[in-house]
Amino acid sequence: MSDAKALKRQKFEAVYPILRDELLAYLKQEGMPEDAISWYKRNLDYNVPGGKLNRGISVVDSVEILKGRKLSDDEYFKSALLGWCIELLQAFFLVSDDMMDQSVTRRGQPCWYRVEGVSYIAINDSFMLEGAIYYLLKKHFRSEPYYVHLLELFHDTTFQTELGQLIDLITAPEDHVDLSKFSLAKHQKIVIYKTAYYSFYLPVALAMYMCGIPHTPSNDPYELAQSILIPLGEYFQVQDDFLDFAAPPEVLGKIGTDIIDNKCSWCINTALALATPEQRKVLDENYGRKDAEAEKRVKALYEEIGIRQKYAEYEEAAYKRIMGLIQTIPEQPSGEGVTLKREVFKVFLDKIYKRQK
Amino acid sequence: MSDAKALKRQKFEAVYPILRDELLAYLKQEGMPEDAISWYKRNLDYNVPGGKLNRGISVVDSVEILKGRKLSDDEYFKSALLGWCIELLQAFFLVSDDMMDQSVTRRGQPCWYRVEGVSYIAINDSFMLEGAIYYLLKKHFRSEPYYVHLLELFHDTTFQTELGQLIDLITAPEDHVDLSKFSLAKHQKIVIYKTAYYSFYLPVALAMYMCGIPHTPSNDPYELAQSILIPLGEYFQVQDDFLDFAAPPEVLGKIGTDIIDNKCSWCINTALALATPEQRKVLDENYGRKDAEAEKRVKALYEEIGIRQKYAEYEEAAYKRIMGLIQTIPEQPSGEGVTLKREVFKVFLDKIYKRQK
Repeated sequence: MSDAKALKRQKFEAVYPILRDELLAYLKQEGMPEDAISWYKRNLDYNVPGGKLNRGISVVDSVEILKGRKLSDDEYFKSALLGWCIELLQAFFLVSDDMMDQSVTRRGQPCWYRVEGVSYIAINDSFMLEGAIYYLLKKHFRSEPYYVHLLELFHDTTFQTELGQLIDLITAPEDHVDLSKFSLAKHQKIVIYKTAYYSFYLPVALAMYMCGIPHTPSNDPYELAQSILIPLGEYFQVQDDFLDFAAPPEVLGKIGTDIIDNKCSWCINTALALATPEQRKVLDENYGRKDAEAEKRVKALYEEIGIRQKYAEYEEAAYKRIMGLIQTIPEQPSGEGVTLKREVFKVFLDKIYKRQK
Repeated sequence: MSDAKALKRQKFEAVYPILRDELLAYLKQEGMPEDAISWYKRNLDYNVPGGKLNRGISVVDSVEILKGRKLSDDEYFKSALLGWCIELLQAFFLVSDDMMDQSVTRRGQPCWYRVEGVSYIAINDSFMLEGAIYYLLKKHFRSEPYYVHLLELFHDTTFQTELGQLIDLITAPEDHVDLSKFSLAKHQKIVIYKTAYYSFYLPVALAMYMCGIPHTPSNDPYELAQSILIPLGEYFQVQDDFLDFAAPPEVLGKIGTDIIDNKCSWCINTALALATPEQRKVLDENYGRKDAEAEKRVKALYEEIGIRQKYAEYEEAAYKRIMGLIQTIPEQPSGEGVTLKREVFKVFLDKIYKRQK
């Protein structure tokens, strides 16, 4: 990580304890017992701050680009707060997803529900991570004209993500392999709803609201942003799926398990679309098995089908398509108020294009 | 059930399929796969409409009392919609509580997570019951001046209920009995947060917003309502706890299991407050055991301590206190706009006072 990036991260991280303490102060004020307050502190500290924080930090970055200048301390704090609300939303999803998937570890530590004494309480704990979002928004944004837009944006995005999780859960249950349920169309739906809305559209839309960008009846800037960020998020997740298969574990920082876990990944769906009847049989018999040999056979088939080449073609096409979409944003010289800027999207695209991990 | 009550219930129930179909239409419009749409339908139908519906119907009743007249069709629909939002909130809590408590049945059928093929997907399904609330509010109340108040009311109430559930979960885990964690003060906190806010304050506050009752800087009618409805909800739950022990199963409609389940009930907390060291030993050794003999010993001790008499005293005192609170509401003759009415609270109190089931 570059020094600048590390410093930026540290500055963002420094906001977290302030927000956590505000939440704990609310519990204290409501006369909650000490053990409930320390439980909530442990829940927040264990599940919220330990990730890559890309989503949260991208709110701050986007606000800076849109305003075209350094932020005041108050502006920094408020944009970081919105960023932490995304991290809270993500923590809500991850704590519950880990239970639903019966995962073992997350971010190099045991999943929260597997921590001694937590177990099913993790369900309510995940709710209280979501609840924190609306407490913080009310406390800090209540008097802003865009407050109700922030609430609706979080509601809409949360529901979209839950929809994506539902399709994923019923399409690719870990314990029941049925590749006839898979398709590239289904994969696209899962990826857009489960990941793209909350990871890509949400941070930018939050930044836009904070900068006072208004909705318009035609050429709504939020719709324009969404029309770029959803394909961008889709590209990001396809890449994630590809790297799970193709990236060396020492580069990726983890060992990919999508094949063993019966994941509805871009790779399997692409392979299914290209497979001969004989190849399809190999996939049906080996995908999603808890068996290293079966996994090897699937990987060999991916190579046989030429998935690396297919991915390279996908990536080039996606890059060009998204660049084209970005060019459709009108670059106004300096009209009234803050307007959308191509730079916001270019920063995202540059971070993603040809990444190796 | 009286004919009038049955008709009222039927009219309220008739609104449910309209709302469910609006939710399903949203999924369809978003291009969700057929299996996801039918899954959500099954989730809604299984978990939302089958309860007593007291909370939901009390929104409609309260709006009628506040307006002092029959409702137009549109008014009826909107107040019933708000009522169904409480039922959705309750379904969200019940589906997840049943998983956390590892309960077996709910409303005479298997708990949702125990239905074939559901299992951990029930966690995401519970989220989607909560998500439905904000979809429906946005669709039907977005242009109302009190829209943001509705959103905040649901946020606040949800968080309060989750707080109550947290205290309950860490105070009275089913598999680890430690009566030193119990106290009447802790019980009061659990009851107010876990039940009173969403079951009593929420329906009346929703009705008040729908009737256009404004917040005021001093003597805020919402604070006044809360100051009556929280004690009312507390009384209701104490009664619920008492009936679990004292009501004949054929009257109650179920067999009480609070003693066996290590519940932090009003009965055990009252017994603990009154017990001699010898009686305390009996409670420590027999409470929360999966053992009919142990349960009998606890019940005998409750009788010995005179819990029926204690409850009768509690009920009389609660009734008088709440009646006194209700009298503090100013009964304005007919000023401008709709104002709070004593009748709203009296209806609740009359339904509860000396109920046997």
